[in-house]
Amino acid sequence: MPELRKDPIIDRWVIISTERGKRPVFFIEEAPSTKTAICPLCPGNEYMTPPEVFAIRTPGSSPNGPGWHTRVVPNKFPALRIEGDLDKEGIGIFDKMNGIGAHEVIIETPNHGETIADMDLKTIQNIFIAYKERVTDLYKDKRFKYIMIFKNHGSVAGASLDHSHSQLIALPIVPRRVLEEINGGLTYYKFKDRCIFCDMINQELDDNERVVYQNELFIALSPFASRFPFEIWILPKKHESNFITHSQSESYFFLAECMSVLMKKYVRLLNAPPYNFIFHMAPKNESELSHFHWHIEIIPRLTKMAGFEWGTGFYINPTPPEEATIYLKETEV
Amino acid sequence: MPELRKDPIIDRWVIISTERGKRPVFFIEEAPSTKTAICPLCPGNEYMTPPEVFAIRTPGSSPNGPGWHTRVVPNKFPALRIEGDLDKEGIGIFDKMNGIGAHEVIIETPNHGETIADMDLKTIQNIFIAYKERVTDLYKDKRFKYIMIFKNHGSVAGASLDHSHSQLIALPIVPRRVLEEINGGLTYYKFKDRCIFCDMINQELDDNERVVYQNELFIALSPFASRFPFEIWILPKKHESNFITHSQSESYFFLAECMSVLMKKYVRLLNAPPYNFIFHMAPKNESELSHFHWHIEIIPRLTKMAGFEWGTGFYINPTPPEEATIYLKETEV
Repeated sequence: MPELRKDPIIDRWVIISTERGKRPVFFIEEAPSTKTAICPLCPGNEYMTPPEVFAIRTPGSSPNGPGWHTRVVPNKFPALRIEGDLDKEGIGIFDKMNGIGAHEVIIETPNHGETIADMDLKTIQNIFIAYKERVTDLYKDKRFKYIMIFKNHGSVAGASLDHSHSQLIALPIVPRRVLEEINGGLTYYKFKDRCIFCDMINQELDDNERVVYQNELFIALSPFASRFPFEIWILPKKHESNFITHSQSESYFFLAECMSVLMKKYVRLLNAPPYNFIFHMAPKNESELSHFHWHIEIIPRLTKMAGFEWGTGFYINPTPPEEATIYLKETEV
Repeated sequence: MPELRKDPIIDRWVIISTERGKRPVFFIEEAPSTKTAICPLCPGNEYMTPPEVFAIRTPGSSPNGPGWHTRVVPNKFPALRIEGDLDKEGIGIFDKMNGIGAHEVIIETPNHGETIADMDLKTIQNIFIAYKERVTDLYKDKRFKYIMIFKNHGSVAGASLDHSHSQLIALPIVPRRVLEEINGGLTYYKFKDRCIFCDMINQELDDNERVVYQNELFIALSPFASRFPFEIWILPKKHESNFITHSQSESYFFLAECMSVLMKKYVRLLNAPPYNFIFHMAPKNESELSHFHWHIEIIPRLTKMAGFEWGTGFYINPTPPEEATIYLKETEV
């Protein structure tokens, strides 16, 4: 059983995957090639994954066979286990709990080699609809407090399979970065009675120095204090604390359009870089927060993270976000 | 002039190096080889660096010429500038200040290719003495609140030169990770009237499951909530909030001995991995804190950091620290 352990000094939880325990020899050996002969995420190979928990399919096709457009399956090597109770335990000054959670893989397309930059808008929209469906379903489980949706694209960014996919991890705790943002937003809200993210969006629209792209419903910004070159945040223009509150799938179409434009810009400007994106949203029990605004953080992996950043939570960014914005805006897609 | 910018939502500062602004083309091109024909850190090439600010030298040798054992020079491409005033400015909801600070390079040995694992203890001791001297000197500058000492070893860990060196950056702010540890320590202290780090050391000595190494003055632990495989923290056994308080250089000899043993273990067990180490110590104006305990965090760079970790401050570690400890203890040096 994996364990969740808490750093006794700061409020940081770590998953210790006791079952996947890596012996030193595995780190020394060359990483295995990601180009396996048979891709477990391709149509026809559905038997290679655990049974699907959600799929958007061609009418008439059967579960766990071909005919899907988007398919969600449990991770075959999960960081957390779905079965069990949330036993918490103190060991002197240390705290740990059972590594209970869900870990799923969202297979974004049946076409091996197709990236988000290549996909049509309907395909990208389906990815967001799949996220929403899975989050809504997993939040019925009382053990889960937060669901992290993220994508690792390219092996430098941590992807172990080529076939385009994203992941979600349902957690029994709220991760500290999200808590910090919620607390920061609350402090501002108490003072100003306004959402800090809404204020930031308004100021960015006025300044127009860091707005990379916008459509009717979404805005894409280079953050004022960007940690990484060409980092972009996507936010809904209208205040919303959770992305699953949309009852209409139309808004996911606008989100798909925005994501598509940004990914095409990355491909043209930065030569298809590895990247990560991460959703930040309100935790389950606080889905209607006035002081928090959901968003997606996109980080192209262009620079190596050095000791300075690890040790301090303090970043050095060699590309001013205003310059990054000019380059991104000038890139035609 | 570089800028320090603050994220408006959470208390995170970022250095935006406006002068080193990297255009997209630089990220696309291959990184230049680190094997330059002439090493600017080697003896005889002192003219290639800015003039030294400290050196431990053979008696009779002249500054900025050969004959040094340890040499400290300003970074030729500093992330922050030493000249100027700390002007702070608000831009609507955003905050920034001039990127004032010092950025220095500690050249650890005259011998190109020698690593800490190869060095004799006197050489390693000199590195720590150089840190102490520079920190003590830079803290005389009223603009600086914190000095970060760190080492990037290997290009994967962010080193851009092969010749063994570490760095320090003097900052006009206290980085958030350090502040969080101080605040976490204070919360515990208010409750228990004891230092949480001291309690942790005592518990680890009792359990003896995660003690990698110890000598008379220092202990090396695999942290209970290790973020990374084979992560190690070195702490003084006796309570101290700042490593520069030692008046005797003898204690740096014990620190050197501990560091030497750990580095030799890394080389043998993990095949000389890239790594970072980072000092965490009390900020300048709080050098005698009862609730904070200085330490060094050492992180071998064995795993790729993926989107999950970036987005959440939440880590997945495939190697339980108890297993890492067994491997490290069994490795003879």
